[in-house]
Amino acid sequence: MTTFDALLKIRRSVRDYTDQAVPLELIKTLIDETICAPNASNEQLWRFSIVRDKEYMRRISDESKKNILATIQVDPNSPIARYEAVLRNPSFNVFYNAPCLVIISGPAERLNTQVDCALAAGYFMLAAAARGLGTCWINLGAYIEDAAMRAELGLDSQTRVVAPLILGYPKQIPSMPKRNPPRISAVIE
Amino acid sequence: MTTFDALLKIRRSVRDYTDQAVPLELIKTLIDETICAPNASNEQLWRFSIVRDKEYMRRISDESKKNILATIQVDPNSPIARYEAVLRNPSFNVFYNAPCLVIISGPAERLNTQVDCALAAGYFMLAAAARGLGTCWINLGAYIEDAAMRAELGLDSQTRVVAPLILGYPKQIPSMPKRNPPRISAVIE
Repeated sequence: MTTFDALLKIRRSVRDYTDQAVPLELIKTLIDETICAPNASNEQLWRFSIVRDKEYMRRISDESKKNILATIQVDPNSPIARYEAVLRNPSFNVFYNAPCLVIISGPAERLNTQVDCALAAGYFMLAAAARGLGTCWINLGAYIEDAAMRAELGLDSQTRVVAPLILGYPKQIPSMPKRNPPRISAVIE
Repeated sequence: MTTFDALLKIRRSVRDYTDQAVPLELIKTLIDETICAPNASNEQLWRFSIVRDKEYMRRISDESKKNILATIQVDPNSPIARYEAVLRNPSFNVFYNAPCLVIISGPAERLNTQVDCALAAGYFMLAAAARGLGTCWINLGAYIEDAAMRAELGLDSQTRVVAPLILGYPKQIPSMPKRNPPRISAVIE
């Protein structure tokens, strides 16, 4: 098993995967580890949708791209507008060539959903890295509005998609994008 | 060094600490590991404020309690109202007896601040656990409004406090609060 400081190096955002499938049982094992994450009042607001069908992932990609482009149409100054060119490319798949997708979601009306699902996502990405798998959080895949698709994914109208995470075996592990020195705003002692 | 699956067991929310101080250099090492966390577009929106003075932590606790109680006064149906009784107890310190506090914050106007700081908080808690330290995310300590205190903590008016994390050497590591089986909403394959 991998030590934590080794994990820090091998947990990278991976956008290029081999064709090797990820067994469903392995994904469930990762989820079992994910739910060890800290969360507010142990309420475990997180829910998981698993997609192991690349064709279905392509449909989610198209749906999400369409909805983001509609948002940009309404608000050209939206921060997401910087992705417009790539989103207008019909061959661009927001999930790259990953073999599967795990969507972490939670109840939209709960204040803690976003933070608790982000904590779960962090655990998921580390659990995957510890087993030689790669992941990447794909914000551009979160804009799922089509009612039939939401139903198939188990996302009812009260559910907020927080973290669409692609998962697979990396062709290679990228090096870490350069980090700035941490910004320590104050030390009181 | 600790393996990841061992870390899952020893990273618990700790609310009871020994008197042993945590050296500033060790806290900075934890922060160096924390900033390896994934984050949107590698923008590294996170900032860190370190408090190693229990008396100052007590002042932050009193400030945050005061502001939460004012919120409850305005909105008695707020979810935080369930903490009213404990917050009205003048001897209750939201940071318990922890020897230090690290506040993770980021620019309030940025959509990704909450999620990116939560990912950083998850890394910080794991990095601490890997070194035998305990942590706990203290939401009740986040309500810091006093201008002088915010200035001392390096939190300007544009900064949002996301994760106040207490840190210290645990008297003991609590067992994991029971988790429900993970809620898998859909499997598409």
